[in-house]
Amino acid sequence: MNEVKRVGILGAAGLIGQQFIQSLRDHPQFEIAALVDVRAGEPYGKVARWRFDTQIPESVADLTICDVNSPLLKDVDLVFSGLPGDVAGPIEAELARKGLMVISKAKDHRLERDIPLIVPEVNHEHLDLLKVQKDLRNWQGAIITTANCTTSILTMTLKPIHDEFRIKKISVVTMQAISGAGYPGVSSLDIMDNVIPYIGGEEEKCRVETRKILGGVDSPASIDVSATCTRVPVLDGHMEVVSLQTQNEVGIAEAKNAFLSLKPLTLHSAPKHPIVLREQEDRPQTRLDRYEGNGMSVVVGRIQKDTCLGLRYVVVGHNTIRGGAGEAVLTGELMEKRNLL
Amino acid sequence: MNEVKRVGILGAAGLIGQQFIQSLRDHPQFEIAALVDVRAGEPYGKVARWRFDTQIPESVADLTICDVNSPLLKDVDLVFSGLPGDVAGPIEAELARKGLMVISKAKDHRLERDIPLIVPEVNHEHLDLLKVQKDLRNWQGAIITTANCTTSILTMTLKPIHDEFRIKKISVVTMQAISGAGYPGVSSLDIMDNVIPYIGGEEEKCRVETRKILGGVDSPASIDVSATCTRVPVLDGHMEVVSLQTQNEVGIAEAKNAFLSLKPLTLHSAPKHPIVLREQEDRPQTRLDRYEGNGMSVVVGRIQKDTCLGLRYVVVGHNTIRGGAGEAVLTGELMEKRNLL
Amino acid sequence: MNEVKRVGILGAAGLIGQQFIQSLRDHPQFEIAALVDVRAGEPYGKVARWRFDTQIPESVADLTICDVNSPLLKDVDLVFSGLPGDVAGPIEAELARKGLMVISKAKDHRLERDIPLIVPEVNHEHLDLLKVQKDLRNWQGAIITTANCTTSILTMTLKPIHDEFRIKKISVVTMQAISGAGYPGVSSLDIMDNVIPYIGGEEEKCRVETRKILGGVDSPASIDVSATCTRVPVLDGHMEVVSLQTQNEVGIAEAKNAFLSLKPLTLHSAPKHPIVLREQEDRPQTRLDRYEGNGMSVVVGRIQKDTCLGLRYVVVGHNTIRGGAGEAVLTGELMEKRNLL
Amino acid sequence: MNEVKRVGILGAAGLIGQQFIQSLRDHPQFEIAALVDVRAGEPYGKVARWRFDTQIPESVADLTICDVNSPLLKDVDLVFSGLPGDVAGPIEAELARKGLMVISKAKDHRLERDIPLIVPEVNHEHLDLLKVQKDLRNWQGAIITTANCTTSILTMTLKPIHDEFRIKKISVVTMQAISGAGYPGVSSLDIMDNVIPYIGGEEEKCRVETRKILGGVDSPASIDVSATCTRVPVLDGHMEVVSLQTQNEVGIAEAKNAFLSLKPLTLHSAPKHPIVLREQEDRPQTRLDRYEGNGMSVVVGRIQKDTCLGLRYVVVGHNTIRGGAGEAVLTGELMEKRNLL
Repeated sequence: MNEVKRVGILGAAGLIGQQFIQSLRDHPQFEIAALVDVRAGEPYGKVARWRFDTQIPESVADLTICDVNSPLLKDVDLVFSGLPGDVAGPIEAELARKGLMVISKAKDHRLERDIPLIVPEVNHEHLDLLKVQKDLRNWQGAIITTANCTTSILTMTLKPIHDEFRIKKISVVTMQAISGAGYPGVSSLDIMDNVIPYIGGEEEKCRVETRKILGGVDSPASIDVSATCTRVPVLDGHMEVVSLQTQNEVGIAEAKNAFLSLKPLTLHSAPKHPIVLREQEDRPQTRLDRYEGNGMSVVVGRIQKDTCLGLRYVVVGHNTIRGGAGEAVLTGELMEKRNLL
Repeated sequence: MNEVKRVGILGAAGLIGQQFIQSLRDHPQFEIAALVDVRAGEPYGKVARWRFDTQIPESVADLTICDVNSPLLKDVDLVFSGLPGDVAGPIEAELARKGLMVISKAKDHRLERDIPLIVPEVNHEHLDLLKVQKDLRNWQGAIITTANCTTSILTMTLKPIHDEFRIKKISVVTMQAISGAGYPGVSSLDIMDNVIPYIGGEEEKCRVETRKILGGVDSPASIDVSATCTRVPVLDGHMEVVSLQTQNEVGIAEAKNAFLSLKPLTLHSAPKHPIVLREQEDRPQTRLDRYEGNGMSVVVGRIQKDTCLGLRYVVVGHNTIRGGAGEAVLTGELMEKRNLL
Repeated sequence: MNEVKRVGILGAAGLIGQQFIQSLRDHPQFEIAALVDVRAGEPYGKVARWRFDTQIPESVADLTICDVNSPLLKDVDLVFSGLPGDVAGPIEAELARKGLMVISKAKDHRLERDIPLIVPEVNHEHLDLLKVQKDLRNWQGAIITTANCTTSILTMTLKPIHDEFRIKKISVVTMQAISGAGYPGVSSLDIMDNVIPYIGGEEEKCRVETRKILGGVDSPASIDVSATCTRVPVLDGHMEVVSLQTQNEVGIAEAKNAFLSLKPLTLHSAPKHPIVLREQEDRPQTRLDRYEGNGMSVVVGRIQKDTCLGLRYVVVGHNTIRGGAGEAVLTGELMEKRNLL
Repeated sequence: MNEVKRVGILGAAGLIGQQFIQSLRDHPQFEIAALVDVRAGEPYGKVARWRFDTQIPESVADLTICDVNSPLLKDVDLVFSGLPGDVAGPIEAELARKGLMVISKAKDHRLERDIPLIVPEVNHEHLDLLKVQKDLRNWQGAIITTANCTTSILTMTLKPIHDEFRIKKISVVTMQAISGAGYPGVSSLDIMDNVIPYIGGEEEKCRVETRKILGGVDSPASIDVSATCTRVPVLDGHMEVVSLQTQNEVGIAEAKNAFLSLKPLTLHSAPKHPIVLREQEDRPQTRLDRYEGNGMSVVVGRIQKDTCLGLRYVVVGHNTIRGGAGEAVLTGELMEKRNLL
């Protein structure tokens, strides 16, 4: 058994940073060694506006926040980045250059050709890109990215269908939780008693990230993706209504078999059932299904034939766990198992 | 100018009944003469659990509820039925047989071939079916139905596109308000912080009613409709994300022109602009746009090309006004103008 | 009849500013002549993130925003200030010094002894302070303030009880709407499925403003006020649960008579019934009662004897109309009638 | 160590029944042996509309629901009753007469003088009433009741203050969760974007139950209680704003010490800290604090002197755990420890 790895968290006080701390609670392989955020020098417990209904782990609350140049950070085996888009890019690159392995939730590097964009159960073989990255960039460390929350949940369900039936077109409409927008994020005046049919950049992310994740290491998949992303008054959990056209026709029973065939990983944070099926006609529901598999499974239901494209179903996943920090931690576990840390 | 017509309301204390009373407030052509519900004999103001933030009109509050056999009802020129599905069918038929003109919001008779299913701006010519109905049934009166809320809002936007570009396939995902389920309807425990991806019967209604409305008087349109209907925590207003495949390709500018070409009716309740376009990228929004045109317009935005079907847009309409009592009242006005009352 | 007065609005694009525009819609005596906010030079319609479900009046949307030194502002008869606290103070003082009459919703000047703090139906005689203000400050114009939303709604109900029974102690617990916090204000992540039992500064405002408003022109009332102010997931409308101890005992019937005795003003925005009583045991309710009297009435119910203090009741009022811009506009009408403009 | 006790649950499919099953999950001393509800003969998993975001324990889902006369029920050591008020009374009495120990959440028997009304940390000595009950009723079994949710949370905080400072008057205003009303309970149309200032019977329960719980075994405490109970759009967790008058003056520091002095029980479900204090000015919050101590602690904050009564604070507790099934299970553990089962 390997020793416990020391991890750092960038953007530790933000919503994603907090979710990293939750996902690392009592983790057998990772221990938190550095919390990076503005207001360095202050104890984490004073700075973070903790959003969960469990208390901050005491050991974490007492940690002093450090800045990105702190020696504490140099010493870690792995960095999880919860930095916001645009801010994240240069900081992550600089850390990777200096020798750190950085797993990032930010969008900035996701689409670079030599940077893996990982949904562990879906395309872990894309980690092979790290060799390419090393050759190209000559960095001591590396950057690994995980997908946008919506795309992560979506591709979990697409992968087994694509493998067996070849997907050609995807139309997806999402109903996304407010926690996806960070904190303070969405004003209550905007979202209460309302649906907002637009989330900046989200539809494009669905399109291009899906193609990269479902593609080979060096070429995106040739799949048309049309997405409309909406925000609904829900705290956590994204619902997605998916319609698919496949090269080979897929029946309902075949689709169910395919969904159930997606292989679980044998890692600490990996859900035993990556895709869970619900047979009740009114499931999955966001509030009732988002915590399936500790928030790491996605839940599929309402599988139907549709006359427009071919197959239609509904999926719910937890945006800040499966589609967020939980997936990044799972990616870290995968890397640790492959001796990439 | 014609004299004021006397109207009766079936199911007057229910949610649709209350909306009828709202839509008839200060109406220049219709006056409420009979309120039918259970608890006949009691004053309406005591029975109705009034849901609006304006008070019940005093003249209505003081009216005594009557039952369906009351002489008060025999005397009216027009009946609006807000009865629930399955209950409505035989009662409406009996009243029509006896000579009353019944405009119904209930699903029961919508699909019968000689009964018009009307969205006034879309297919008012279907009122010609009344002659057929008379011949077939030999009733003194008649039944006229209006569409399911979701279908009503949807077909408003489909009509001008279909006329010009011939729609072949429609995929629609809805986010529907709780008021669509009546009272007490959806339990707060079910819908708070949640999305429920199922509304019993709704998707089938979208499919068959759309075909009837967009078709000719005697034959439904050959259009494939796939719908997924969800319930979201919103009080009033349905949002629909629509994707279309048309026989003749339609560009964004052409779609806008088509939407703006839908003709307004010159009737008291008719909105000046049946379809209103919003250019902002985050509109239409349910809470902000549902009252456009006093709740009788539908608001369209986010018109885009999509790679799956062809055209994609978002529409918001008020489910209990445009998709409910308001539309039935408008249908009554239309009939009055055509001397059908 | 007097000519129409020209008014300016400070902080026009903010939530209070928008409410001023709503409250001035089709106003017979006031016309909007200057909209002041940051982003001067741009059309109002582009700058304001309009929160209402009616459109911005077209004439207003096309107005160009100006800055506080614009000649447009010099020319007005009256300024409504919707500036945020702390920002408002010096700007309002400067405008008053230069000759403008400024009615402010901001807290900054409320407690100054020569500045009237007005709830029109309650203490319009406090406008006499303007003479004192003129003497003391030697300004060409003047500042008039209106009360904090919670206090405004509260004192409406206290006034008639105090006049007849002399209030000694007040305990109030509020459930306040999110619109009271401005925009973006309360994060949806903070308030959804939650109650927050704290609103910065609010409890102290209740205490001191109530004493000033119910006191004489030159001395606050000797009333103990204890308040706990909470934020609840409601868009508009504050509910307050009030317990009172009075010098002379007050029965339930006497309390009702007192509430009904509060005199309406004969002004355009004044509600016909400043206090409306509801007899149903589950009223007033925030959503159902906030728009009573176009949002300018307060609605009282659940009047009971209590064994702790003496009298207990519940009141609901609209925080951005009665407790906000609507009350400021009413104050302007009052001043116009008294030839103070 | 004692053997595991077999328990039955009345009203097992309802909201309280489901919470019993949650509170008994992996319980070391109690195993579920009988689930009683209507639709006897069907598997529990098919009947219960499970409201939690964890799945029904498999062993429970497969249990067949039985009726109240089933031999399964005769065989249990303890019955938890989640029956609704009025229904519960005679059924519980009959079971107790026949020899069962019944711990009830229903209101029906709470106020009978020989029936203990227990909040375990507050008045466990009231279990002595079981001897009186036996003498009076000559039943083989017995009935033990637990308090109304609001009262349970309230008396946890009152007890230590009362012991040290003698409470004379209490004024409480509550903001209660929708789950308190059962399922389907509160219509979403009633509570969304709203506060309802009335919950049938709740205020009277607060008054009389508080007096019984804080009193001696044979006489209620002489405390005046005035309560206003409101329903807010929150899923779980009641907030209560409490004002107290005590015989001996109590300062803030003394109050804190008193709160912290309430002794924990050494039982499986007992929280380590029955009362948790929060020092942040905006806590306790319903959503953030309701799960403290697995939902069995109550969280107190905003402790202040008030000029009306004397002391003022805010408390949050979980209504269906501390104020519900969790407290009944804790009472069962207490009885087991005292060899009362």
